[in-house]
Amino acid sequence: MAPEKELVQLIGFWGSPYVLSVRWALKLKGIEYEYHEENLLKKSPLLLQYNPVYKKVPVLLHNGKPLVESLMIIQYIDETWKQNPLQPQDPYERAKTLFWAKFAHEKCIAPMVSSFFKIGEEQEKCVKEACEHLRTLESALEEGKRFFGGETIGFVDIAAAWMGCWARIIEEILSVKLIDEEKMPRLIAWFSNVVEVPALKECMPPTQNLLEHNIKFRKFLVAAAERLQSVPLTGN
Amino acid sequence: MAPEKELVQLIGFWGSPYVLSVRWALKLKGIEYEYHEENLLKKSPLLLQYNPVYKKVPVLLHNGKPLVESLMIIQYIDETWKQNPLQPQDPYERAKTLFWAKFAHEKCIAPMVSSFFKIGEEQEKCVKEACEHLRTLESALEEGKRFFGGETIGFVDIAAAWMGCWARIIEEILSVKLIDEEKMPRLIAWFSNVVEVPALKECMPPTQNLLEHNIKFRKFLVAAAERLQSVPLTGN
Repeated sequence: MAPEKELVQLIGFWGSPYVLSVRWALKLKGIEYEYHEENLLKKSPLLLQYNPVYKKVPVLLHNGKPLVESLMIIQYIDETWKQNPLQPQDPYERAKTLFWAKFAHEKCIAPMVSSFFKIGEEQEKCVKEACEHLRTLESALEEGKRFFGGETIGFVDIAAAWMGCWARIIEEILSVKLIDEEKMPRLIAWFSNVVEVPALKECMPPTQNLLEHNIKFRKFLVAAAERLQSVPLTGN
Repeated sequence: MAPEKELVQLIGFWGSPYVLSVRWALKLKGIEYEYHEENLLKKSPLLLQYNPVYKKVPVLLHNGKPLVESLMIIQYIDETWKQNPLQPQDPYERAKTLFWAKFAHEKCIAPMVSSFFKIGEEQEKCVKEACEHLRTLESALEEGKRFFGGETIGFVDIAAAWMGCWARIIEEILSVKLIDEEKMPRLIAWFSNVVEVPALKECMPPTQNLLEHNIKFRKFLVAAAERLQSVPLTGN
């Protein structure tokens, strides 16, 4: 009996970098999949059914079985389809790879994203925190290496190197500085080396669309914050 | 040539449940190790050398190579020493296991720990958040199963079932309610099934010592918060 055809489905949102990193992983593995675009303002029953705990994209469905959270999804993809491995075979090297991917997510990207949801001093604090940790990430990149782990694209690259593009968008919208050209030359080269890989480049949403979407999103957030702030004021 | 003797070292603190979970993993694998007790008020050069990014225990040194963060350390232990596997072999089952271990850490334990560092309304918010997610964890435990994954002890058990003991200590010190006997019968049975495994029980620090240590720690935190609060007051 021939093996049953696999069904791979991705629930995503075009402007989400976490979804992008899963698309990158699937692309590098050569896996075809059905894509379901989610309306994040009105989440679909499909999303709520398959990610009832976090209710977030991306969700990968492999033969109907759901996987959530981008880092876990990428690990799963790498363990399930062995071609073009993204993680090292050695357990210690694999743990190091996971450490830096998590560091990039939790210490660099999370405060960047938080800055987008804040104003004034709180925003400054997030920007400062992101910059401090970006310098640590810079020091973890080895001079002259094309990708995070060497000459072959891997886990940390697809998990986090999109942050370069998103940082530029946040800088432009908030008028802040996240990536310091003088102090972070390796990071800047790394971002561009990853995004310029043809297979990855073709998955990238157009920068102009991302910018316009995020300008609108920021306006929406500021208006919502002002409405919230006005509640105690009118109440006094 | 006989294989070189492996050197396994653990930098820990006796009262840390994250260190306990690593000790549990090493115990279940039958790995002998050197233990270095850390003074968290005056961190050792050893800790700062091997965990410069987070400066936290536990740190596992395997032949001098450092691993940090308890979940990653347990994964590494499981992948390096194959006896008594803690994670399922199937990638999907393994991803599910990691999902629930992370959920327990990030959604149940993190707000519990935060409640210990807070007072008043902020503390109540953390307690409420922890309770809500504990109910989700309750619903993920299958009726009648001894451990999280079935009849064999595994990853989620050693990563998170110590929370039962720590929750009781937090409840006693803060006079709050985290574990609801009526609504969380499976969780309560699970906590006790794991901690009663003889090999694990013998690694547990005495509850009375944990309680006394945390009473002192809470007093220290409250005094520090009061000092901090008094700064703007005297400045006005």
